[in-house]
Amino acid sequence: MPALITYRTPVQEDWVDYNGHLRDAFYLLIFSYATDALMERIGLDADSRGQSGHSLFTLEAHINYLHEVKLGTEVWVQTQIIGVDRKRLHVYHSLHRAGFDEVLAASEQMLLHVDLAGPKSAPFEARSMAAIQHLQTQQDDLSISNYVGATIRRLSQPADGSTC
Amino acid sequence: MPALITYRTPVQEDWVDYNGHLRDAFYLLIFSYATDALMERIGLDADSRGQSGHSLFTLEAHINYLHEVKLGTEVWVQTQIIGVDRKRLHVYHSLHRAGFDEVLAASEQMLLHVDLAGPKSAPFEARSMAAIQHLQTQQDDLSISNYVGATIRRLSQPADGSTC
Repeated sequence: MPALITYRTPVQEDWVDYNGHLRDAFYLLIFSYATDALMERIGLDADSRGQSGHSLFTLEAHINYLHEVKLGTEVWVQTQIIGVDRKRLHVYHSLHRAGFDEVLAASEQMLLHVDLAGPKSAPFEARSMAAIQHLQTQQDDLSISNYVGATIRRLSQPADGSTC
Repeated sequence: MPALITYRTPVQEDWVDYNGHLRDAFYLLIFSYATDALMERIGLDADSRGQSGHSLFTLEAHINYLHEVKLGTEVWVQTQIIGVDRKRLHVYHSLHRAGFDEVLAASEQMLLHVDLAGPKSAPFEARSMAAIQHLQTQQDDLSISNYVGATIRRLSQPADGSTC
């Protein structure tokens, strides 16, 4: 089964720099909207947030910028569930466009399930957990990207000539 | 010497969610503006970009969200040079507010020096490298945050009961 497509958008004028390229932070905004869409799929959409008072907060994100994206380009986000525990959801979002096989940007994120009344962390409700595990089962045959679990490596100093 | 303050801003209305809290992507936008300000300090500001045709692209970013930030809060970014080689600059941005000692968010980023004529990666010019190394010398006594070099860890599955 292919990865779940959670969000589609054209690249907006507000999101690009003076060269017409998507600014770094707005790649993350597109992934943020993809997380909102994922929330709807696991029973944490705006309506039920009103009722349940639960949401997902981002604890941590890692993003690799692989290709530039231009104003007006139609892009979409594919989302893979990497793991889940009682309160946390580990996801991998990748950004794509038509006619180009490579991933435009890759982002691994750790999300926390929160009771907005605190706000404080809270275990997923059973129906959310069931929805997450259903998605996970559907994605059983997807491999895990090398961009998951990555670390930014320290550079050698320029004086030693060992780097290019 | 304290860390360099690169950017200050109040949290804008466009940047908050329905609860009045800064949305994850807009923490990164604030750090993106801090990188722009850093570019000015190393001779890559808008004026000289026009002349030199050089800029910094973000290759990779890791961000830890540590505290919520509310609409209207005055925040600032402190920036530490972690490393540099011929074409790459490794920085650590942290977000702060008055009256609160803890870091609000921490972001490690790897930036690439680019010749916009390609665009293609290009070695830093001598005056940029000198400015970077001058900043680095000023920051010699700063320790490196634990958020530098961090990895998002995989979760245990909920069924095994080993996580909370």
